[in-house]
Amino acid sequence: MNYNLQDAMAGLIEVFHSYSGKEGDKYKLNKGELKTLLNEKLPGFLSASNDPMLVEKIMNDLDENQDGEVDFQEFVVLVTALTVACNEFFTGCEKEQSCSKKD
Amino acid sequence: MNYNLQDAMAGLIEVFHSYSGKEGDKYKLNKGELKTLLNEKLPGFLSASNDPMLVEKIMNDLDENQDGEVDFQEFVVLVTALTVACNEFFTGCEKEQSCSKKD
Repeated sequence: MNYNLQDAMAGLIEVFHSYSGKEGDKYKLNKGELKTLLNEKLPGFLSASNDPMLVEKIMNDLDENQDGEVDFQEFVVLVTALTVACNEFFTGCEKEQSCSKKD
Repeated sequence: MNYNLQDAMAGLIEVFHSYSGKEGDKYKLNKGELKTLLNEKLPGFLSASNDPMLVEKIMNDLDENQDGEVDFQEFVVLVTALTVACNEFFTGCEKEQSCSKKD
């Protein structure tokens, strides 16, 4: 993949607004919009958890100003945290050579 | 663009490691690697500035633990800040309808 950072940044903005604009404040995600976004754009994230309250918990964690909605800045905190966690998992694997390798 | 968040996250990780692995600590960017990454993957960012010390300033700002290198967590802080700034610029434009539109 010949990846351009600008594409990743633009993609993040585009994904957010394509869901935040569905209902209510078009610049913020309500709980329903956040859940739909995570289900459709981060497939496997919600389904990997057995916690039916996961979206509510994420919403509460992200919603720093407690207005019941998630703005873009609050949203990128989630994406950043997940990306850092993924990176640590994969570099941890590589350093320890503890992950299974494909032959 | 039908954008998947996972692609953006994977892209961020891939871009970082394709530059951090060039020399020295393969899990961190030194100043040269950061500069090359910004020039090649964020075209226009460095060239839009007239400040010859910009890379040094970014390096100092990002390098929270002052080890002279930027790890992945420090790097995503830059990407996140730039993405939030871009988002605010574009939503500000839209809200104020102050930006020129293409006909």
